[in-house]
Amino acid sequence: MQGLLLFAHGARDPRWALPFIDIQQRVQAKVPAMPVELAFLEFMTPNLIEAGARLVQAGCTTVDVLPLFLGAGGHVRKDLPELMGQLQREHLQVQWQLRAAIGEISSVVQAMADAALAGMSK
Amino acid sequence: MQGLLLFAHGARDPRWALPFIDIQQRVQAKVPAMPVELAFLEFMTPNLIEAGARLVQAGCTTVDVLPLFLGAGGHVRKDLPELMGQLQREHLQVQWQLRAAIGEISSVVQAMADAALAGMSK
Repeated sequence: MQGLLLFAHGARDPRWALPFIDIQQRVQAKVPAMPVELAFLEFMTPNLIEAGARLVQAGCTTVDVLPLFLGAGGHVRKDLPELMGQLQREHLQVQWQLRAAIGEISSVVQAMADAALAGMSK
Repeated sequence: MQGLLLFAHGARDPRWALPFIDIQQRVQAKVPAMPVELAFLEFMTPNLIEAGARLVQAGCTTVDVLPLFLGAGGHVRKDLPELMGQLQREHLQVQWQLRAAIGEISSVVQAMADAALAGMSK
């Protein structure tokens, strides 16, 4: 079974997580049978290792890890690959597949550019 | 004249800025006559005050400030309003209008949810 692991930065303010929970819920609504987890690098729980373990427990054998970051800097290029390595070592029977960051997807960039103009105050 | 000031976090890795530059360029391509600037909170330049001054110099009298943040935590709720106050004090003749964070716009959330599923590895 395939699963999806959404990975976000995290913040002290709980309201920060709302758009990410919104993404998770919209994905889940479209594919109710697919396990979808949301994990955080810091300040919020679960972390990537905990959320990955949940997906394994749910029976996933292939997991896409999707960074919900607009820019790909140190968190996406260094921290995340290290965490992916740990997931792989702890769950050797599972394929963990790192996807490009959400901000590098053209349709997402276009949606942001469109929203920037659509919302102009006059 | 109306201007748009895009505000992103910034990072040490210059590649981090690419999606934000992409947004700026797509917006600018659609409205070539409107001044559009991209500013950063830290690590990258220009900062919000510098980019705002450029827009004023370009003749803007109304400026939308759009936070290119997915989640709205301390940076959007505390740091940015303080910077907006500084912009307003330094340019009393200009209307500075703070918009909701890009990650709080439903069409953007939907685009991310769609991209999450469209890119599933099998």
